[in-house]
Amino acid sequence: MQVLRGADRHDLRDLTVGVRFEGEFGASYTDGDNRDVLPTDTMKNTVYALAAQNPVGEPEPFGVILARHFLGRTPRLSRVTIELFAHEWERIPRGERRHGQAFVRRGPDSRTAVVQATRDAMQISAGAADLTIMKSANSAFSGFPLDEYTTLPETRDRLLATALTATWQYGTEDVEFGPTWHAVRRTLLDTFAEHHSESVQHTLYAMGQAVLATVAEVARIHLVMPNKHHLPIDLSRFGLENRNEIFVATEEPHGLIEATLVR
Amino acid sequence: MQVLRGADRHDLRDLTVGVRFEGEFGASYTDGDNRDVLPTDTMKNTVYALAAQNPVGEPEPFGVILARHFLGRTPRLSRVTIELFAHEWERIPRGERRHGQAFVRRGPDSRTAVVQATRDAMQISAGAADLTIMKSANSAFSGFPLDEYTTLPETRDRLLATALTATWQYGTEDVEFGPTWHAVRRTLLDTFAEHHSESVQHTLYAMGQAVLATVAEVARIHLVMPNKHHLPIDLSRFGLENRNEIFVATEEPHGLIEATLVR
Amino acid sequence: MQVLRGADRHDLRDLTVGVRFEGEFGASYTDGDNRDVLPTDTMKNTVYALAAQNPVGEPEPFGVILARHFLGRTPRLSRVTIELFAHEWERIPRGERRHGQAFVRRGPDSRTAVVQATRDAMQISAGAADLTIMKSANSAFSGFPLDEYTTLPETRDRLLATALTATWQYGTEDVEFGPTWHAVRRTLLDTFAEHHSESVQHTLYAMGQAVLATVAEVARIHLVMPNKHHLPIDLSRFGLENRNEIFVATEEPHGLIEATLVR
Amino acid sequence: MQVLRGADRHDLRDLTVGVRFEGEFGASYTDGDNRDVLPTDTMKNTVYALAAQNPVGEPEPFGVILARHFLGRTPRLSRVTIELFAHEWERIPRGERRHGQAFVRRGPDSRTAVVQATRDAMQISAGAADLTIMKSANSAFSGFPLDEYTTLPETRDRLLATALTATWQYGTEDVEFGPTWHAVRRTLLDTFAEHHSESVQHTLYAMGQAVLATVAEVARIHLVMPNKHHLPIDLSRFGLENRNEIFVATEEPHGLIEATLVR
Repeated sequence: MQVLRGADRHDLRDLTVGVRFEGEFGASYTDGDNRDVLPTDTMKNTVYALAAQNPVGEPEPFGVILARHFLGRTPRLSRVTIELFAHEWERIPRGERRHGQAFVRRGPDSRTAVVQATRDAMQISAGAADLTIMKSANSAFSGFPLDEYTTLPETRDRLLATALTATWQYGTEDVEFGPTWHAVRRTLLDTFAEHHSESVQHTLYAMGQAVLATVAEVARIHLVMPNKHHLPIDLSRFGLENRNEIFVATEEPHGLIEATLVR
Repeated sequence: MQVLRGADRHDLRDLTVGVRFEGEFGASYTDGDNRDVLPTDTMKNTVYALAAQNPVGEPEPFGVILARHFLGRTPRLSRVTIELFAHEWERIPRGERRHGQAFVRRGPDSRTAVVQATRDAMQISAGAADLTIMKSANSAFSGFPLDEYTTLPETRDRLLATALTATWQYGTEDVEFGPTWHAVRRTLLDTFAEHHSESVQHTLYAMGQAVLATVAEVARIHLVMPNKHHLPIDLSRFGLENRNEIFVATEEPHGLIEATLVR
Repeated sequence: MQVLRGADRHDLRDLTVGVRFEGEFGASYTDGDNRDVLPTDTMKNTVYALAAQNPVGEPEPFGVILARHFLGRTPRLSRVTIELFAHEWERIPRGERRHGQAFVRRGPDSRTAVVQATRDAMQISAGAADLTIMKSANSAFSGFPLDEYTTLPETRDRLLATALTATWQYGTEDVEFGPTWHAVRRTLLDTFAEHHSESVQHTLYAMGQAVLATVAEVARIHLVMPNKHHLPIDLSRFGLENRNEIFVATEEPHGLIEATLVR
Repeated sequence: MQVLRGADRHDLRDLTVGVRFEGEFGASYTDGDNRDVLPTDTMKNTVYALAAQNPVGEPEPFGVILARHFLGRTPRLSRVTIELFAHEWERIPRGERRHGQAFVRRGPDSRTAVVQATRDAMQISAGAADLTIMKSANSAFSGFPLDEYTTLPETRDRLLATALTATWQYGTEDVEFGPTWHAVRRTLLDTFAEHHSESVQHTLYAMGQAVLATVAEVARIHLVMPNKHHLPIDLSRFGLENRNEIFVATEEPHGLIEATLVR
């Protein structure tokens, strides 16, 4: 957590940071020789110290700073991955305005970023995690193959709910990371809302395609969409009419659909 | 989950409902005599069936309907408690407007309600759970007793963060439950933001007092505030200046403060 | 975690400790006056320091030491509660013997203890948490009331599974805490296994009654038994015979049964 | 959950099963054409039905049955992965013997298996998840590089704790899966206990190497070992002697070490 203190307005940067090293560290495993093992405790301290020296703005450039630092310091490091998970806060409303120094956690979805760097290349990804969305119209699932174990009825009107995790890779480092992230998120939400869905797969593809079509900086996108089933209750067992209105949300067993779309 | 289907606009009512029976059910325990044991499976079905017959609006009146139903049906039931936990959804934005049938989960805090009824009395409570809030100014902790095990430094400027759970009891059944809930939540947030805090206790009390002062329907309020510690990193160990700017969030061990304020 | 280091054999004491104060601390809430507020950070340090000075054996006497310490130091404290949650480790086997200094976590159930003390009285409880048990015979549920919302079939042969949490209060401080805890746990398991169950309630009562009947030191016992449902799969939908053999474990909705038995 | 009912002795097979399809399913994504999409609901039913027809023994052969079934039924399926997570139960003791029909969950570690099959090849892996282990002697961490962000002291005597997840691939399908699994687990525990550890890496490698050396069927093994830190409390702040005896277990930030060893 970094608190950037302006005159009467503070900004919060609340990140969980993961640092992953891959490289020629065999001697530590085979011989217990630690001379090339940067302790994870030092990695942790480095994150604090570099944040103090480079006030954190968007997560992606901070990940680039960390990646460059570790590559510069660690000769046997061939690839470093920096994972950033942003916990987001909103200012508490104060009448028409907003408090400068008091915040409420925004959620439940989060903003993520991954910077992966070798000696030759730098790759920057961004993402949205746990974006829980539902549509109560324009969702069907029918026409699937039937066998002796099929019990699912076909439906032209079901609830479609998921907790989307999307990760997209930028084709360039020259990105306005904040506005672009919001543009991708908005496109994902819009497409989910408007799509005439024949399946989770169908909507997932439409969402990914819309991102590629509208956000030029995105080179590829990976989407993971668990099917958060909402099963209709059969009210006719109670002598009541079924109006496709009462559902029970179940956790398991559940479907999980994923795909990667490349420009 | 109940979907209320208007012409081109759906409304979602997404509740987790708990039903608790207390009463003269001794024979089922001592003799295995189930003739007075309403199965929990039937309780569950009853929730679905009553929702179908009484479209759910605010959680509290639906809790009252359930409580009355079970008391009317179950002679040996002396007290029934209905706990309602609302999962809240917002409409996905659509340009200037909002989608009628597509939703995104709002969070991370939730709205709760409890209806507790006996043959003679009905008591209605409401609450907010997991309202995660932080203030980066106007928070101190000093003047506490020192002993040989004290290592905490006194501070006049610390981060104060908590995940508030508040539960308040109404003194009457004649409440506009939706607007009143929002008024209480707003008062809690405002007071947290504006308070000059000498401790979690001090701010907790101010928040509870403000609710009693501004929302006449509230008879008592219980607040639980875990101290979500954000410990300052000592950057001087790295040859850097400490500017009270970099913190690590820790989970355990942690403090937990609670109190009940009665009008 | 305390490591008691014998010559070639170490013992682990791995406890999560909760400390709860109740008393005349109003001024800290109303006036922000912290002069009587022992920081939770100091409570934490005190646990470490008293463990160092009083090597931990059974959890209960360590809880008594903590309770007496805090009452002796804190004039405005009227009641202190010490909750102890023991994470248990077994020695890793080494041929016929056991390693002296290498351990594997035992679980998933845990041993708990609670010491509650006022200026006048000391009350000691012990418990078992998350003891997950199942019986595949001698469990029925039938004879329950039927109404228009009943869909559960009666059964004379079902799976009965629960994650038991039991807490029992001792009528005296003069208890051999380790052997007595194991005696209670054994009695709970035995009774669960042997009982001809007409319901969760029926078996819960038999288990509590058996503890009161066989362990003289126990004055009362509270049992909480969630009904971890295992629903039979209807294989006839696939043209297969139902032999009461294939089940799906479900989490929610579920029943939760609890009761207190007093000697 | 499958209950295999012998005369007076039941056996439990309690598995969470994951089924993953990869193949030529593009039309469902691009065109909403579901004619090749086997519903996940049908996959679930298939698991139940095949268990009823092929009583489950070890997890691995059941995985093979499922993999072959799905490949045989689904022309566009190019690779199927079956993940099996076994929840293990022990019989409740009954004097010298064991109950035939009453069980207590064993844990916290679990047995896992993965069967991955294409039209040409079948690959079988097994694993142990969440095997929580600790050693209180013969563990050091020193000789690591120092920089301006290093604060970790070198130590020749620390607690080493981890929650091991190991996954090993068999080089053949001709394996006695139960005994071999137990042999691998025993080797992992033994090596962890006996090793003179210079780091988590060092012990991880020794454990993997010992498995390859003693269990001929294993072709490769992947080990993941989070460093579950136990930080020594500095008792000198309380005027007490430090005897390397009192520790606090922390969750985050923490190290995570992994490696794959190939024969």
